[in-house]
Amino acid sequence: MAACSYCHPESEIVVWQDLQCRVILADEPGFTGWCRVVWQAHVRELSDLNDVARDHLMRVVSVVERTLIADLKPAKMNVAALGTASPHLHFHVIPRFADDATFPEPVWLSRRHGNVGARQVGIADRLRAALMDALG
Amino acid sequence: MAACSYCHPESEIVVWQDLQCRVILADEPGFTGWCRVVWQAHVRELSDLNDVARDHLMRVVSVVERTLIADLKPAKMNVAALGTASPHLHFHVIPRFADDATFPEPVWLSRRHGNVGARQVGIADRLRAALMDALG
Repeated sequence: MAACSYCHPESEIVVWQDLQCRVILADEPGFTGWCRVVWQAHVRELSDLNDVARDHLMRVVSVVERTLIADLKPAKMNVAALGTASPHLHFHVIPRFADDATFPEPVWLSRRHGNVGARQVGIADRLRAALMDALG
Repeated sequence: MAACSYCHPESEIVVWQDLQCRVILADEPGFTGWCRVVWQAHVRELSDLNDVARDHLMRVVSVVERTLIADLKPAKMNVAALGTASPHLHFHVIPRFADDATFPEPVWLSRRHGNVGARQVGIADRLRAALMDALG
């Protein structure tokens, strides 16, 4: 059985974390500002969390989303916890742009088109500042 | 501009609702138990909700997920609010099975394979009972 890549990450840009979750700026070619909010403990499903834990996770997701919207002015945000292949609870928080790799289709299409530029510059710092401001 | 299909639904199997959100059992060929939790008001993004509203929505999502897990014993659950084409806040809550139409890939792949059987029978009633029990 392969080691869980969220319990044992090889390389991650962690922009903020507390004892319960961490926010990663992902490197996803064709997309800008794609973040993952990862529950630190190896929990499988969202509904495995109790109300307090779930509220905290979703508050972090919401702060990340709101910051990306203010920062990048995307056409739409996508929020998703899938983990079918990596069953360790994490939410993708993905700004969508008319020129991203699969717009307006879901990002998980196998065929991606086009590419995007350098919007990513400085996002990690601005996310960190927003999360520290909202959550400490 | 086309009317919003969540503000003006043409046909929906609503298994439960309150003033803030409703739970729909979707008809998605190749998938069983696929639900949508729709925010009643025309809100665009998750982060447009305040903390109280978001906590309520995610509690409903969690009850739906937990009920589907107990009922169907899926391999994994997927939870996603995308809405790139339909920007009215709704969460997909999707049980994944080894024999579903795209497993283990995301459900939004354009090419779907296989098919599934009649697991869907009775789910609406059991979801309604679980939601009324948890949320009134």
